Formats: sequence, structure tokens, C-alpha cells
Amino acid sequence: MEGFSYKDYLSYFTFRYGSKEMREIFSLYNLRITWRKIWTALAKTQMELGLLSKVEYEEIEKNKANLNLEKSFALEKELQHDLMAELKVYASQCPKGGGKIHLGATSTDILDNAEILCFKKALDLIKDKLILLLKEFIKFIENYKDLVCMGFTHLQSAEPITLGYRFSFYLQDLYLDLLMMKFLEKEIKTKGIKGAVGTSASFVNLFEGDFKKTEILEKKLIRELNLEAFLITAQTYPRKIDFWILNFLASLAQSLHKFAADLRIMQSFGELQEPFLKYQVGSSAMPFKKNPILAERICSLAEYIKVLPQVAWNNAADTLLERTLDDSANRRIIMSEAFLSLDEILILAEKIISKVKINQFNINKNLA
Amino acid sequence: MEGFSYKDYLSYFTFRYGSKEMREIFSLYNLRITWRKIWTALAKTQMELGLLSKVEYEEIEKNKANLNLEKSFALEKELQHDLMAELKVYASQCPKGGGKIHLGATSTDILDNAEILCFKKALDLIKDKLILLLKEFIKFIENYKDLVCMGFTHLQSAEPITLGYRFSFYLQDLYLDLLMMKFLEKEIKTKGIKGAVGTSASFVNLFEGDFKKTEILEKKLIRELNLEAFLITAQTYPRKIDFWILNFLASLAQSLHKFAADLRIMQSFGELQEPFLKYQVGSSAMPFKKNPILAERICSLAEYIKVLPQVAWNNAADTLLERTLDDSANRRIIMSEAFLSLDEILILAEKIISKVKINQFNINKNLA
Amino acid sequence: MEGFSYKDYLSYFTFRYGSKEMREIFSLYNLRITWRKIWTALAKTQMELGLLSKVEYEEIEKNKANLNLEKSFALEKELQHDLMAELKVYASQCPKGGGKIHLGATSTDILDNAEILCFKKALDLIKDKLILLLKEFIKFIENYKDLVCMGFTHLQSAEPITLGYRFSFYLQDLYLDLLMMKFLEKEIKTKGIKGAVGTSASFVNLFEGDFKKTEILEKKLIRELNLEAFLITAQTYPRKIDFWILNFLASLAQSLHKFAADLRIMQSFGELQEPFLKYQVGSSAMPFKKNPILAERICSLAEYIKVLPQVAWNNAADTLLERTLDDSANRRIIMSEAFLSLDEILILAEKIISKVKINQFNINKNLA
Amino acid sequence: MEGFSYKDYLSYFTFRYGSKEMREIFSLYNLRITWRKIWTALAKTQMELGLLSKVEYEEIEKNKANLNLEKSFALEKELQHDLMAELKVYASQCPKGGGKIHLGATSTDILDNAEILCFKKALDLIKDKLILLLKEFIKFIENYKDLVCMGFTHLQSAEPITLGYRFSFYLQDLYLDLLMMKFLEKEIKTKGIKGAVGTSASFVNLFEGDFKKTEILEKKLIRELNLEAFLITAQTYPRKIDFWILNFLASLAQSLHKFAADLRIMQSFGELQEPFLKYQVGSSAMPFKKNPILAERICSLAEYIKVLPQVAWNNAADTLLERTLDDSANRRIIMSEAFLSLDEILILAEKIISKVKINQFNINKNLA
Repeated sequence: MEGFSYKDYLSYFTFRYGSKEMREIFSLYNLRITWRKIWTALAKTQMELGLLSKVEYEEIEKNKANLNLEKSFALEKELQHDLMAELKVYASQCPKGGGKIHLGATSTDILDNAEILCFKKALDLIKDKLILLLKEFIKFIENYKDLVCMGFTHLQSAEPITLGYRFSFYLQDLYLDLLMMKFLEKEIKTKGIKGAVGTSASFVNLFEGDFKKTEILEKKLIRELNLEAFLITAQTYPRKIDFWILNFLASLAQSLHKFAADLRIMQSFGELQEPFLKYQVGSSAMPFKKNPILAERICSLAEYIKVLPQVAWNNAADTLLERTLDDSANRRIIMSEAFLSLDEILILAEKIISKVKINQFNINKNLA
Repeated sequence: MEGFSYKDYLSYFTFRYGSKEMREIFSLYNLRITWRKIWTALAKTQMELGLLSKVEYEEIEKNKANLNLEKSFALEKELQHDLMAELKVYASQCPKGGGKIHLGATSTDILDNAEILCFKKALDLIKDKLILLLKEFIKFIENYKDLVCMGFTHLQSAEPITLGYRFSFYLQDLYLDLLMMKFLEKEIKTKGIKGAVGTSASFVNLFEGDFKKTEILEKKLIRELNLEAFLITAQTYPRKIDFWILNFLASLAQSLHKFAADLRIMQSFGELQEPFLKYQVGSSAMPFKKNPILAERICSLAEYIKVLPQVAWNNAADTLLERTLDDSANRRIIMSEAFLSLDEILILAEKIISKVKINQFNINKNLA
Repeated sequence: MEGFSYKDYLSYFTFRYGSKEMREIFSLYNLRITWRKIWTALAKTQMELGLLSKVEYEEIEKNKANLNLEKSFALEKELQHDLMAELKVYASQCPKGGGKIHLGATSTDILDNAEILCFKKALDLIKDKLILLLKEFIKFIENYKDLVCMGFTHLQSAEPITLGYRFSFYLQDLYLDLLMMKFLEKEIKTKGIKGAVGTSASFVNLFEGDFKKTEILEKKLIRELNLEAFLITAQTYPRKIDFWILNFLASLAQSLHKFAADLRIMQSFGELQEPFLKYQVGSSAMPFKKNPILAERICSLAEYIKVLPQVAWNNAADTLLERTLDDSANRRIIMSEAFLSLDEILILAEKIISKVKINQFNINKNLA
Repeated sequence: MEGFSYKDYLSYFTFRYGSKEMREIFSLYNLRITWRKIWTALAKTQMELGLLSKVEYEEIEKNKANLNLEKSFALEKELQHDLMAELKVYASQCPKGGGKIHLGATSTDILDNAEILCFKKALDLIKDKLILLLKEFIKFIENYKDLVCMGFTHLQSAEPITLGYRFSFYLQDLYLDLLMMKFLEKEIKTKGIKGAVGTSASFVNLFEGDFKKTEILEKKLIRELNLEAFLITAQTYPRKIDFWILNFLASLAQSLHKFAADLRIMQSFGELQEPFLKYQVGSSAMPFKKNPILAERICSLAEYIKVLPQVAWNNAADTLLERTLDDSANRRIIMSEAFLSLDEILILAEKIISKVKINQFNINKNLA
């Protein structure tokens, strides 16, 4: 399998922005493994309902991590269908039960559940970092709750405030984002296994008209995946969910943009300074300068996240009837890159808040 | 006081889009009345805490609806400050207690609470219409739950579905929006009364250092206004709230865009038809045509709402330190127009769903 | 005819933002007058080609400003079609030739040409203000080309610069916008008169198959209107033109946002100060403060304009086949409000640049 | 040097969307090579003006492609500055003249000129593809200029049109984009070599106050690079240029979204069909289906490009004073990905237009 180097086009998210953990979630490798995880869970559930033998299932289970991307990519060129290509490779690895992988399913029965699993994992990473950050802000606020500094409105001196109180604005914004996240955690469900137009018709056929069994199939499957399913779907889970996820990411990015933009002003006023590494260079012309480049990077990436919900809005608003593919290509970009951008922002914010330097002298000067 | 005619620039929201009720909420008259409502409530609360006499308060209370916009606008030209102008007019109407209106307050102590009151009222109007719409969709779904029609993916015939099931996609989207609304209802709080930089310093001064009384003042005031206050604010309530409100409105607009876009396709396939008035004209060149103009108007206005959260994002992200005025001018446009656009969309959606016509013949033809 | 007061919903563009001239262009009255102007020009051209008698044309010409909005609005309620309603009222005022108004035309043959006329007029207003502004910047730069002040990168002191050189950044940005405007002036054409799907079929019919005469009709008409027509159109002129116009307005707004944001920073550093009226009040709590509220208003309105091209993008991208009405309702908002917002921004920028105060003492202090 | 595999996060632009040529332009390797190209050109020009010896220059020239990314990346971690790291590696490879690389320059003297070179190259690729596409459309229109089909307004049958005339809408849109491109080609200039705040102070110093020589330096350099320079810049070239480039890319994406969305409707009506490969699979549940997946991918990627100008708008509007770094991180994403998305769209459009199938039977049926 070919690898990629800096002679190829590489996104900065591949090698610079975001954590290793977040990158792994959105790697193609992990996505394919997750597809196979769904197929395996489906096979297990269908075995329990009598559609597969134990032997067939076990073979499928055994091969669930046996990716052969080279073969799969070659097939995809012919079929023009990535999931079908992967399916054929997987099936070819399972001489006994291969033909029963994907039994009754449509592509999005696999894709959508796999993506919701990835998004949930990514949200968990974000939550961990957010909670860590909240703690750092609390610590900072405790430390500086009585440090009086000048308050500014319209960038003009207004009335005194304490540094801790100012930082509690950021804390409260972040806390509001956490509340939104908790709301989303509860409401983000998955497609389940409802077939081509959401009616589960193909599964009802498999069970010879037994609706009950079809319901049991879905219930067992989503329990196996530790998810909940929407009661109703078309071919895909409602794309409104993507819009909500991106709105949440944009909201959290907004909170940290406000923090970082404020910090840049405070650093300009000489009151605060973001951490500066030992050998760090200010600029190639003026190496002595202390530029707030971490805070600036937060603002820059936040502005990128800001626009992505607009793409998701149209994906949901324009998915005609049971589904069109307006969403497919751009979702591959916007969902992963929004998570990766925010991940980087959270890393930077933590770096700043945990090590920001206070310049008491200038704070007093500006108060006078 | 001057009036305006069609020779002036008039927004289509003034005379065409949105309900009378929604327009009233966002009328300048209502906004000023609401300012005076906050001032009156503040005076009442301050009276109870000994800062005003009963006589002073009663005079303020008596004049709370005594607007004189002509005078207020004239003053505003000099002062370049709308709230100060209104305050001076109000004060001039209260010879005894006029000097104590706005006691210890900063402009946003009045403005922000007034706006949150208006937004809550506007959200209530939206909720009423949304619930009505949910009921209409439920009725429709009940009626057509067994009406089999062709399901389409990629705008190509896929598998049969029922019309009722298809409409349950829209219902579920709307229900998700209702859940989001309930979350927001709980989390949208107001500024309370915290002064120029959020520290309540001016009120603490009024009470000669008594923090307890300052807290009681805010608690009494927001109870009087039937609101809850954020624990922490800078000069304004967190502008993230505007972003959230607009995201909600955009999400609901998205659900109805999907519905309307689908309906236009179904009408193109000859299966459904939105209501058409007795003397309605299709087009000036082809009067016979049945164009889905209500559904198209939904899509058009929804696209407008879509972009407005982006403005609010920057308002919150760029409000430097205790506040800058990046937000002021554009909030006067985006908040009212987003509500008015959605209000119109809800009216149109209700018209369609309650009177849409089914063409069984074409439905069967497309199934064959 | 009813008038509107502050008890109705009134946009801030009705009474506060933008010039009287710009408001008039986008008044409903002017739009209707412009429709009648197109109808009159069409009648004149058709008379010259033998389709109307002189008497019929003269009656139409005589009534071209004889609006009766009350009647027109009443009819519109029945017909659900604003142009048809206006046409019927106009026709009823012309007992001889009324039936020949709109001969062979489709609605957009009137609407689109009318709108392009309005946009061109609005662009001319913008150009006049832009050129005035360029002159003011040139004057300022001349005056301060040698005034040394500190240059800032990352909001940190970098190297000295002159105030005049800094302001030449803004001048060059504005000049680039002027170049773009000149490009647009050349490329913005109109629909001409091509009927329901752009084939001119109805006019060819009127001329009994004579294509030549149809071409002459369009040529004469657009010369009469002092416009040029696109060679090809569907039912409407290409909506890409709206996108380009809004991109231009957003680009000019961007230039002035940069200027205004910089000014707010310079005012915060005490180096510059925007004009402050004699009785102007800083804030209700701190009347002494000098807040850069004009510059802040520029930034605020610029942020609003920024998002509007996104709406126009989808109008052009989603106009299915010969035309759908995705664009109609939102164009009534975005086009006028973008022009009005920019008009206000230009007024504000001129106020600032012509009267900004320099604080030499602080400039020197910051250099040291 | 490490490589990357599918276990890493890889953007779809790395391995799926866009051409090899476009990916190479935006590879990190090419970017670094281009930096060295600017450094070499600067050294050559400075040699000609007496600041470097021939020997020093030749050593620099000899090493211009001698990248050592591993070393450069290691250094970057310490310095927190990518260009400085590359500079130090380059200098270490040139024992004689290494210390004179970057003489008098600030980072953006290298970065900005390098990026403009890349953007111009990328625009050239786009232009080649656009012109090819225009030719294909002309061919198609010639072929089908007399093929009568039904014209649709509001997705309802209106009047007949010819297929060729309909496709001329798309052609004209694309031609308008070409006009815009030609305007941009003329107006896109580069930073030149103006130092930290745009005053060229460091170069004037190198030439001991000789302004003339500083001007000659810039003129020689940009001629060497085959570019033109803006008369005035701050630390960077005006970021408005990015906004304009992205607006152009979004405009071209819009034209092809309209084409692709129309094609999806025509394919739904059975009149046209995009090419379908021999072994292509419709869907995993319904392999027989002919889905317009190429057209859908165009629409999907076009929606992504649509939002990117919004990011560039703020980069230009918020670059405070001589420069802040609001732009840096997000430009690394938006510029390359906009070009790559459009590149893919153009490839897809060419595939469709050159091989689209016409179904005369259905066209006639829909006319009847």
C-alpha cells in the first residue's frame, strides 16, 4: 500500500494541527475498521435471529480487522463505490459466510452507524479537553479573583474589575458550551438498520414478513454498538444532527476566540503574556518580539470552524426526498476538520491558561 | 411624529412577511415601552430597598407608557445615544422622581433585559406556531400512513414507501427542533443589573458597600420581570445566547426548507400540490400554471435565516474585554428579521400542510 | 393608502441607516414606477414596430406615474402576484391601450430590467461616495505622510512607520474596490426581453415568425433604457450577477471594516480619535468617555454585509432549469439591505476621515 | 523523514479529490522549494546590487532544491517558526553565503511572494480546465441546438426550449467566470520586498539610505519572479486578494453547481444521464440504479467552496494595523482546499459533459 510524503498534498491536520488521538479517529483506516465493526455486529445479531450460522459469524468476526486497502481501493475504481469495494474484499476473506455480510442492508446502514460511533468518540475527546480546561480556568480565577485591573469598554478605560472576574466570563461561556454538549449527547442518535428508504423492508423480507423480528434486530444491534437509534429515518440519519454538532463545535470555538482575542489585547496592553518557549523566535526580522502566536492561531482556526455549519445546513435542507448525495463529499471534509481544528484550539487554550504570565507592574500602571 | 409610506424605504417585513404579533414585538414602540418597563421595575425594586420614595416611584410608574418619540428622537441627534435620549424624556415627565430613573444603572442594564424579554416573547410565538404545525403534520401522517408511493434516492425511483412515513421525516425534524427550543428556554437568562463592567460596583456604592442588598436588588428585579439572570456578565449578557437563538431559528428553518424542497419535487412529479387560491394567477405569461410559490418562498426565506448565525458568531467572538459595540447595529437587523422570516415560514408551512392536495392517480403511475 | 408608524415593525434602514437617496431607490414606490417605466418603454418600442398605435402608446405613457397602490395591493391579495396586480391597475387606467401593456412579455421581462436599473443607480450612489472618500484619504495621507508613529505587528510594537503610509493601506484597498466596480459596471447587463424561458418565443409569435424584428425589439428597448442585455438568459438574468454585486459590496465593506477596526485600536492607544459631537454622551454610566462608536458601527454593519453573498450564491446555484423561485423573497431583503448598509458605512467613514483628531503627544510616547 | 499512511489522518484531497498537478502545487515540499526560489532570487538581485559576492550567491543557488525537511521540522519545534527553521537549515548548507540568505528580509517577504507564485500556478491550472470545459460545452450546444425539449419554470412544464439553448446558460455563466478570471489575473500582484511593516526600512539601511537602490532591488526581484508588486503593502500583501480569489473560485463552483443540479433534475426526468462505468454499482441495496453521483459530488464540493470566502473576509477585515496573525492557520486550509475542490469539480464536469447520454424518447414524452 502506498504511503504519502510531503511531496504529496498533505493537510496541516495530517501533521500539525490536532492530537494524535483525534487524527486516528478520522483516519481512513479507523473508518474502515468501524465499518467492519458494524458488519460484524450485524452478523452477530442476525446469527442470534437465525439468519447466519455460528460458523459463518465466527469467520466474519475473525476477519474484522483484516483490512486490505490496496485491494479495496483497486476494486473501488471499477465499482465507483467505496463501501461495496470494502464489502467485496471482506466477503472474499470469509469463504463460508462472506455472502451473508451486509445481509439486507443498504450502504448507509453501515456508514451512518460507523460515523455516529466516530463522532461520539470525537465528542468524548473534546469533552475531556473541555473539562480539563474548565479546571484550569477555575484555578486561574481562584488565583486572581482579587487582582484588580482596569475594565475596558469600547477598548477605552471604564471601571476597575478583577482579573479573576474577567476570566469568569470565559469560564461561563465554556460552561454554557458544556451544557449544550450534554444536551447533544442525549439527543444524538443513530440510523439503526432501516434499509434503503428507512422502511426496513429488506429486513422484513428476510424475516418473511415478521415485523417484530425486524424491530428486535435493530434493538439488539444498537445495544451491541452502545448507541440509540432514531425512531424514524430516511436512508440516512437526519442530517440536522451534523448541523447541531458543528454548531456546538462553532460555539466552543467562539468561546475560545473571545478568550484568545481578549488575551491578545491584554498582551498588547502589557498586562498578560502567553507562554514563550526558551528558543522561540519572535519574528525573522525582530527575533526579540513576544507575539501572541498561540492566541492568534486559536482565533484563526476558530474562524474556519465558524463557516462549516453553513455547509451542513444545506446538506440537511437539500437532501431531497429519501436522500440525495449532496452531503457526501463535503461531509468527508467538514466533520473531521471541524473536530481537528477544535482539538488544536483546545490544546492551545490549555497551554495558554496554564502558563500565562501576569505583569503586575503594567496592570497597576493601566489602573492609574 | 412622522409616519412612513411606500415612498420611503420599507422592509418587506413591515408590510408583507411575518405576523402582526411578531411585528409588534420588534416595533420600536414596543422596544421603548419595554425599556420603560425595566426602568419602572428597577424603580420599584429600589423603592423597596429604600432608594426611592413611594411618591417618586408612583410617578415613574404612571408615566411608563407615556412615550414621546418625537422629542426623544430630537434629543438623540444631539446626544448620539438612543437610551440616554429616552431616559431624559422620561425623566422630564417625572418632576419628582425623574432624576432617580436609571439609578446606578448602565445602558445595557436596561437594553439587555428589555431584549431578552422581547426574544422570549418572540420564541413563545414561534413555539405556538411550531406546536400547531406538529399537530397538522400528525394529522396528515395519520391520514396517509398507508398510502403507498414511490420512494426516491438520488431523485431516482428506489423502493416503495408510504406518504405518511415520508412526512414523518419532517415531523421528527420539527420535534428535534422543539427539543432544542426547550433546552434554550431553560438556558436563556438575562443580564440582570450588574452595571458598566458586570461588577455591580455602582449599585454597591448606592448601598454604601452592602453587597447583600445589591444581590437582593437583582433578585427582586428579575423576579419582577419573570426572568432569570446569568451569574456572571460583562457589560452585556453573553452574546453566545444570540448565536444559540439564531442557530435554533436556522435549524427550524432548515427543517421546513427540507419539507418545502421535497414538496416542490413531489409537485413536479404531479403527486402533491400546494393550495392554490380561486383567483390566483400562475404567471403573467402562463396564467394556467400551478407553481409551488408558497413552498418556494419558504426555501427562499430559510436561506436568508441560514446565514445570520454567522453574524452573531463574530459578535460574541469579537466582543473585546468587557464589551465593544461590534454587535449593536447588526443585532438590530438580524435578530428581528430572523424571527420575522421564520414566523412567515411557519405561516406558509401551516397553509401548505393543512390544505395540500394529493393526486392518487399520479402517485400510482409513478409506482408502476 | 395606509402609512406606517413606530408601532409597526420598521427596519432601522427605514429611519436610521443609509441616505435618503438610497432609501428612495429601494422604496416600493420607486420599484413600481420603474416597472411602469419598463412597460412604457416596451410599448414605445412595440409602437415603433407596429404593434401599438400612437394613441394607445400615448395613453400608456401619460399614466406611467399614476400609481394606485391601494388598489394594486387589494388585487394582489386575490391574484397572489404583485406584478400582475400592478399590471391590471395600470391597464384599467388606459381604456384604449391598456390591453396591450405587457404584450408578449413575462413578469421577469419587466421585473429584471427594473431591478438592474435600480442596482445601477444604487451602484452610482456608492461610486460617488467612494470617490469622495478616496479624495479624503488622499488629503489625509498628504497631510500626515511624514508623521512618524509606531508600526505594530501582532499588536506589538514593531518598527516605525508614518501615519500617512498606514492610511495608504486603506486607500489602496479602496482603490482595488474601485477597480472591481469598474469591471462590474462593464459586465452587469440585463435580461432584455426574452419571455418565459428565454427563447423570445412569444415575441417571435407577435411578429409572426420574424426573428429579425424580435431582435430589433430588444435592441431598441435596452437602448431606450440605457442598458445592455445578456445574449442569453433563461427566465431571469443570470443570478450570478447578484452574487458579484454582493461580493463587491462585501469587499468594500471589508476595506472599511479594516480601517475602522484599526482606528478603534489607534483610539485605544490614544493616538487618534473619531469626531465627537458637542453634546454627545459617552455612556449612560460614564458620560465622559470617548467611545469610537462610529467606527464600531462601521464594523458592525460590515459584518452583516459579509454574510449576504452566501444567500445569493445559492440563489444562482439552485435556480433549477429555466427558473425556480428560490431567490425571490430573500432578494427583496438582501439586495436593498446590502446597499443601504454600505451606504451608511460610507457616510460614517467620510465623517471619520474628514474630522479625525490626531494626538501627537501619545503618538510620540508610543514611539519612545 | 516519516511518511504517512491511511492509519494517519489523511484529507480526501490527499488521495481522492483533485488532480496530481494541483496537489503538487500545494504540497509542503513545493512550498518549501518555492521559499528557496524566492531566497535565491533575492540573493541574485542583492548580488547584482553588490550585497553578496558571486561565490556566495552561487552556493545559495546550488542548494536551492536541497531540502532537509527532517532537520527543518526538528528545528521548528524549538523555534516555533517554520520559515526561520527552513532558513537555518538552508543557511547551514551554505557555509560561505548562508548568513546572507534572507538579508534584510522579514518572513512575509518570502512567504507572500511564494504563495502568490503558487496561487498563480493554481489559477493557470484552473484556467486550462475551464477553457477545455468551455470547448466541450460549445460542442454539446452545437450538437443539440435544435433538439427541442420542454422548458421548466418552478419545476413545472412551461414552454419548449432547445437542449442546446439550455446548455448555453451554463456556457454563459462559465464565460462570465472567465472574464472575472482575466480581471483577477491582471490585478493580483504580490508583496514584493518591503520588510516588516511595508516601509522597506531594513533594505534602505542595507543600502545606507539609498532609496533608489531599494526600489531597484524590488523591481529586479519581481521581474526575476515574473510577478508584479503592489505599490503599497503592510507586512503582507493585501488579504483582500485572497477574498477575491476565493470569490472567483466560489463563482465558478456556483456555475457548475447550477449545471450539476439541473443535470440531476434532467436525469430524474429521464432525459439525460451522466456516464456510468461498465462495472459501476448503483447502490449496495439496488445495484441496478443509475444515480447521478458525479453531478451530486460537484454540488457537494461546490457547497464547501461556497463558505470559504467568509473566512478570507475576516482575515482581511481583522488584520489589525500592520498585520496580525488571524489569517495564518486558516489560510493553510482554505486556499489549498478551495483550489483542490474546484479542480475536482472541473474534472467531474468535463467527464459529464463529454459523455452525457441523451434519451430522445423521454424528451419527446415530456414535450407531449
